[in-house]
Amino acid sequence: MLIIGERINTSRKGVEAAVAGRDGEKIGAEARRQAEAGAAVLDVNAGGDPDRETEDLVWLVGRVLEAVRAPLCLDSSSPEALRAGIEEVLRVVPDGAAGFEGEAPWLLINSISGEEERYAGILPLVREYGAGVIGLCMGDEGIPEDAAERIEAAARLVGRLEGDGVEAERIFLDPLVVPVGVNPGGGADFLEAIRVIRERLPGVRVVCGLSNVSYGLPDRALLNRTFLAMSVAAGLDAVIVDPLNEEMMKVIRASLALAGRDEFCAGYIEDYRRRSGG
Amino acid sequence: MLIIGERINTSRKGVEAAVAGRDGEKIGAEARRQAEAGAAVLDVNAGGDPDRETEDLVWLVGRVLEAVRAPLCLDSSSPEALRAGIEEVLRVVPDGAAGFEGEAPWLLINSISGEEERYAGILPLVREYGAGVIGLCMGDEGIPEDAAERIEAAARLVGRLEGDGVEAERIFLDPLVVPVGVNPGGGADFLEAIRVIRERLPGVRVVCGLSNVSYGLPDRALLNRTFLAMSVAAGLDAVIVDPLNEEMMKVIRASLALAGRDEFCAGYIEDYRRRSGG
Repeated sequence: MLIIGERINTSRKGVEAAVAGRDGEKIGAEARRQAEAGAAVLDVNAGGDPDRETEDLVWLVGRVLEAVRAPLCLDSSSPEALRAGIEEVLRVVPDGAAGFEGEAPWLLINSISGEEERYAGILPLVREYGAGVIGLCMGDEGIPEDAAERIEAAARLVGRLEGDGVEAERIFLDPLVVPVGVNPGGGADFLEAIRVIRERLPGVRVVCGLSNVSYGLPDRALLNRTFLAMSVAAGLDAVIVDPLNEEMMKVIRASLALAGRDEFCAGYIEDYRRRSGG
Repeated sequence: MLIIGERINTSRKGVEAAVAGRDGEKIGAEARRQAEAGAAVLDVNAGGDPDRETEDLVWLVGRVLEAVRAPLCLDSSSPEALRAGIEEVLRVVPDGAAGFEGEAPWLLINSISGEEERYAGILPLVREYGAGVIGLCMGDEGIPEDAAERIEAAARLVGRLEGDGVEAERIFLDPLVVPVGVNPGGGADFLEAIRVIRERLPGVRVVCGLSNVSYGLPDRALLNRTFLAMSVAAGLDAVIVDPLNEEMMKVIRASLALAGRDEFCAGYIEDYRRRSGG
């Protein structure tokens, strides 16, 4: 399971302030803490102020890579900001930025979709830099209504990406979590979509963020980690999450052991020992 | 989701002592606390001392039904003890013991299986009293090795029970949880079996106990409730569990909401309010 740390995001107040004040120490500390907590990839999002996104993203990428030499997930809807961010990664990590670190591409672009404008803007970056890419399972018709629409959007997007030269191993599909408080069947549809994508689109991986599922409901942390367990059982490969959330990380470890994705539970037992100071 | 409370079991020291000392107050209190915590059915097991099982089971059934008028799950491998327990239920609840209370049969026999001797011993009770029955997905060849063997054992047992006049709505199949610390694929096999049974054997319900899954591993409570979430997503209908385990009950509520089995999350929200005193 690939853990993508979500904390370096200007939608978080502390990060916004650190970016505005160019407090590189603070950003480096966030990067290190996430890597130590088990994040294999760090998401970087500088979308708070669109007028400054490009320069903020470049600055953030530099500070993160000074602190931790880890694959990054560049999170933006702006091709210009993404290109500048990628160039900064290549400046610091000139070799291998188109390769993999274990399961993770060194560069992961977050995100493309079947929406025409977004596809046209993001595809050239994925091709040019050999990056991995998160693909949202939707087109111009908007968020899918059910499992079948998610699966159809997934198949169409993968077909198009492969036709444009992006191999399956570089594609991470996001079947799009919706709030179960608004759409009661949305959770089951999402899980069904994970299962079918894993069956029918070999080599492609499935990624998601979780927190939308609990929107508008009480005790969101409980709902989010419970949904994570269900998603791991369905075959989720990667998750965008706060790795400092200990309860969440414990459920991830437990889920992998229970789903047979942690041989003889070695990772679970090791993690338990570490947490209990053993 | 049918919650079957597991606490009235002579394998628990306090219950064993209460049975030995004929402390009816203590048993009645256990029954009430479980019902108040959300158990719709109470499991009763007096198997501690085989020489006294029949009289102990009859005594336990009497004390439970004095305290709570709820469906019981009579848990024994002895046809003699089961018959005496059933007769005691019929003495106290003469009408409707062959009927249903909501989703739950008033009488649930725990358990039958495809093992010849057990099948021959238990079937007459199920037929004669019109009881519900828990069917273990195994035959004389022992615990199934994988998902396919569980599904085959399930189909064979249901076919035989239906041929012998037991309707699907009275059958609760237990696909048998095994320890993932010993059999790493056992969790995934179990979940797959739930999904396939729900698809291919309409009307039949799936039940399980959970705690075997974590045998031999640290932080068993975490593993058990995480596996419960996965099982609910796969379609589990009923679970034998300690309803006083608050963390477990919270995960059950969250799982039902997330799996689309709690319309607009009303049960989840109500439960949250009750817990937070609102």
